[in-house]
Amino acid sequence: MESNFSLLEAFKQTQHQVTHHGKRNIQVLQDVLSHLDGQLESDIYGKGTIIEDFQTKIATYLGKEAAVFFPSGTMAQQIALRIWCDMSGSKKVAYHPLCHMEIHEENGLKTLHNIESVLLANKDRLIDLHDVLEMEDDVTALLLELPQREIGGQLPDYTTLESISTLCHQKGIKLHLDGARLFEILPYYQKTAAEVCDLFDSVYVSFYKGIGGIAGAILAGEQTFITQSIVWKRRHGGDLISLYPYILSADHYFEQRVHKMTQYYEGAKELAAYFNHCHGISTRPLVPVSNMFHVHFGFKREQIEPLLIKIYSLTSIGFTGKLNEISNNECSFEVSIGDQYDNISKEALRTVFDMLATEMTLLQSL
Amino acid sequence: MESNFSLLEAFKQTQHQVTHHGKRNIQVLQDVLSHLDGQLESDIYGKGTIIEDFQTKIATYLGKEAAVFFPSGTMAQQIALRIWCDMSGSKKVAYHPLCHMEIHEENGLKTLHNIESVLLANKDRLIDLHDVLEMEDDVTALLLELPQREIGGQLPDYTTLESISTLCHQKGIKLHLDGARLFEILPYYQKTAAEVCDLFDSVYVSFYKGIGGIAGAILAGEQTFITQSIVWKRRHGGDLISLYPYILSADHYFEQRVHKMTQYYEGAKELAAYFNHCHGISTRPLVPVSNMFHVHFGFKREQIEPLLIKIYSLTSIGFTGKLNEISNNECSFEVSIGDQYDNISKEALRTVFDMLATEMTLLQSL
Repeated sequence: MESNFSLLEAFKQTQHQVTHHGKRNIQVLQDVLSHLDGQLESDIYGKGTIIEDFQTKIATYLGKEAAVFFPSGTMAQQIALRIWCDMSGSKKVAYHPLCHMEIHEENGLKTLHNIESVLLANKDRLIDLHDVLEMEDDVTALLLELPQREIGGQLPDYTTLESISTLCHQKGIKLHLDGARLFEILPYYQKTAAEVCDLFDSVYVSFYKGIGGIAGAILAGEQTFITQSIVWKRRHGGDLISLYPYILSADHYFEQRVHKMTQYYEGAKELAAYFNHCHGISTRPLVPVSNMFHVHFGFKREQIEPLLIKIYSLTSIGFTGKLNEISNNECSFEVSIGDQYDNISKEALRTVFDMLATEMTLLQSL
Repeated sequence: MESNFSLLEAFKQTQHQVTHHGKRNIQVLQDVLSHLDGQLESDIYGKGTIIEDFQTKIATYLGKEAAVFFPSGTMAQQIALRIWCDMSGSKKVAYHPLCHMEIHEENGLKTLHNIESVLLANKDRLIDLHDVLEMEDDVTALLLELPQREIGGQLPDYTTLESISTLCHQKGIKLHLDGARLFEILPYYQKTAAEVCDLFDSVYVSFYKGIGGIAGAILAGEQTFITQSIVWKRRHGGDLISLYPYILSADHYFEQRVHKMTQYYEGAKELAAYFNHCHGISTRPLVPVSNMFHVHFGFKREQIEPLLIKIYSLTSIGFTGKLNEISNNECSFEVSIGDQYDNISKEALRTVFDMLATEMTLLQSL
């Protein structure tokens, strides 16, 4: 704990960070509100122009009939799967073993909705067509997360995606998109959001990853599906009297950043290459397919932390505030490229990576 | 629908409204943020000083060991009852037939938590000691809403409350407080929040009723109970990455208004007396016990609406934007006194009620 705290402190003290858009402080919300008319009326329990206009806008962007704003993706996705289960009568859904629902939601899907999960593929690879072909017969819905965050943000080929979609359609399996980072993968696929979403029956997108809002999510699909989701949103306690702080920020930063996803993606590829040039460091995926990737060190966390702290203090450039222990001889961290990456000059990047390469070579030779 | 819309429009166009604190527009949030340092760090998934300090502050205020901030009371209360049920093994809770859970939450308690409700008392009166004495044996928890909003905001005598609490304690029944309007009843009971809460095992309070924040709630109780509630908060999708827009507003308006509850209560009593002086109008309760009451007209909604619209346009004072149809010959609206009431001069009040009394007498004589 203590050493991790030091890394975090050292990271916070750097002038430039390679990841994200900037600090998560209340300035993020102040900037949204400062240019808006104070007379703008709050949404009230899902009604009003602020929420209705944004829902319509994002439904259109995603090429879906309707959309509803949720305080969280956790809530939106459980509800999506619950609706599909209630429609079919079978309480079984399939997803990846590192799906957000499986590892980050305290078993909400099971304890609140009594839905059983069937895990496809494994912790080292993506779900492929074969996994879906071999899946148990009574699965109601399949959730695909694009990109698969916990393995560095990997993506299937687009043709695989199309084949899975076709197969699900043929078998009557509902296909749900965990699109927490949907905006971020469009440059790689060279598709519009609507084209990708057309392969799915229901779609969730988040507004505080690549978009950089405060919190909140959209669930989109056919009108009948969305109408049901609004009832479930109330049951979950998500139909707040006012969601506008999240909606206004989502809209503000969507406008500011959705067109910058190619820039973030190119930055990720460049940065990953820098890391891969260092001994004992590799990225996952080797070549990013979105704005994100994982950096793996073939060393103990205790060996890497002081090295990073030293580099941060010498260059005032920070990579991460936290290293995850993968095994006794491996640690890693996640990179998500945002606005901050382009604030670092190419010269400064070369300097910091020269330093990192040297340090890693030294470590290798110990 | 159409006539109701007109009443709402006429109400919105009045210069003064007798109820609430003011318009629910984004200025409410702008005012909170404008004087805060932009560098203040966001809470992150329930951690950080913004959320932790506020939770500690309200726990202390309520005299409870611990507290957790929730995006909504719907979520907080379902979770409270779920924890009590899991602890006892019986999935049965008791509450009033007009409890928020019974009529406003789309059966979330049943569909998400499989908890059965036992309804005590009836739609015309409060739960009393006798109801609790005669309650089925296998009830795990009893929820009391103070004041009982849907019947005008009525309250039991404090001795009744104490007796119910003692009885529940003896019988091993957990007592939960729906304190959506707890702050508002303290002047009537002449008790501190901590004194009232001491009668209950778990307590929910809201920050957008008398306090006038944006949204959000606190659930308070013993540490073990709160620790469990945090797990359920995540399951429900309520553990947002950032809740600070609600927390900062809750704190801001708590400081601004919690000491004004006596003023609101006195205003409610005064205003109710004005209404009760008009023929065909009576308030429920006759003498308010908090800042709220219901105004009942012994006439059709279609008869009262044009009369109110006329008075609004002549005086620029508005009572309500919406009349609820109670029966063929009765309609009503809710009053919650806030900051706006004291902006109306006593002279203007006398004028508007002279006018209302005259109009009601005319209506009576038709």
